[in-house]
Amino acid sequence: MKPSRRIARDLLHLADHGALGTLLAGEPAQPFVTVMPFAPDADSAPVFLASGLAEHTRNLDLDARASLLLQADLPGEAGGVLAQTRMTLIGEARRCEPEAALIARFLRYQPDAERYLALGDFGFFRFHPRRARLIGGFGSMGWLDAAAILSPASLSPESEAGLLRLPSMRAAPGFIVLGVDGEGVDLRRDGRRERHHFAASLDPGRAEVQLVALLGTIG
Amino acid sequence: MKPSRRIARDLLHLADHGALGTLLAGEPAQPFVTVMPFAPDADSAPVFLASGLAEHTRNLDLDARASLLLQADLPGEAGGVLAQTRMTLIGEARRCEPEAALIARFLRYQPDAERYLALGDFGFFRFHPRRARLIGGFGSMGWLDAAAILSPASLSPESEAGLLRLPSMRAAPGFIVLGVDGEGVDLRRDGRRERHHFAASLDPGRAEVQLVALLGTIG
Repeated sequence: MKPSRRIARDLLHLADHGALGTLLAGEPAQPFVTVMPFAPDADSAPVFLASGLAEHTRNLDLDARASLLLQADLPGEAGGVLAQTRMTLIGEARRCEPEAALIARFLRYQPDAERYLALGDFGFFRFHPRRARLIGGFGSMGWLDAAAILSPASLSPESEAGLLRLPSMRAAPGFIVLGVDGEGVDLRRDGRRERHHFAASLDPGRAEVQLVALLGTIG
Repeated sequence: MKPSRRIARDLLHLADHGALGTLLAGEPAQPFVTVMPFAPDADSAPVFLASGLAEHTRNLDLDARASLLLQADLPGEAGGVLAQTRMTLIGEARRCEPEAALIARFLRYQPDAERYLALGDFGFFRFHPRRARLIGGFGSMGWLDAAAILSPASLSPESEAGLLRLPSMRAAPGFIVLGVDGEGVDLRRDGRRERHHFAASLDPGRAEVQLVALLGTIG
């Protein structure tokens, strides 16, 4: 995997929230930026839950064009905000109706959203990236296309849920597994999100063995 | 001062950086969000330094319409990112040519920018807010107009620089004064920015007395 692609995908999995840019309803071409918690779906596209009362929801219902800025404290980064790796996605954010297993995955990454879901007036959106601008610190930058950002799902949300229910998964000490995908596993430990990569891409027929082996290396 | 106005102004002074929304050059009405460190100028409008190589700079030179999302860890706030106070400014970001005293003020707030200034290919922009959407935690939200966001400068950057050079300012222990305005003083302590408010608005004729009195209360 090219380094830039690895970084892009790590950001999609490690960032708890992004800054969502939409077009303000009623004002021609006026950008409008809001805070947006999200979770990566099975192919790593950001999925989020938006209030029917929020400006960005009204904006997206009128014009789906959007941008999402992602930033995460990657290991080994220090200094000001401009020294940190970040990525700007551009594309469209459209309403979606996730299946139950994807909603469960979303809530593992975003447990606070449970109370919003209970309110009823919230709906799911999926961000469909077309391109991304990746900046890996000062002077290192470039564009990525959608194929370099997303990864075809190796595991459906149902298969992932089945894996996470296996008895061999119960032993995981000191962390909570949030999600499993073809390239790695996301977990929360001491309140922080971590991503750990499989040595070889996930083979769905050997997923349990690979997953248990990877989790065994996390100390 | 209305509580919402006080919060808006605190955010402008306490946020180290924002998420800047612009319109991507060459793509009609495509939002594009990037990280932007800034500092409040004498009337609290955000001023920032942008690279000639950056997308947002090219975007703003073609269309000044922009948005700036501000968020700061205000005292007493806990919980997820949606529980935090934040504000979305909308308006225009236009190039400006700050006087030397304003550049010095900017560098007190953003010392890392010194090396960018030295590179030469950077220019200053000023964000001219037209309106702002303020969200003070879940369920508390409203619009503010420009008059409620900005405050006419009580002190010019030169007068501020004169105040900061006074012998009575030398004693300040344990913190660095970043800026003084009609309503308060911003400082950096233990790597964090703080804002402290004057009991009564600054009277330029008594500024030194008021400032020394306020700094004396900071322990």
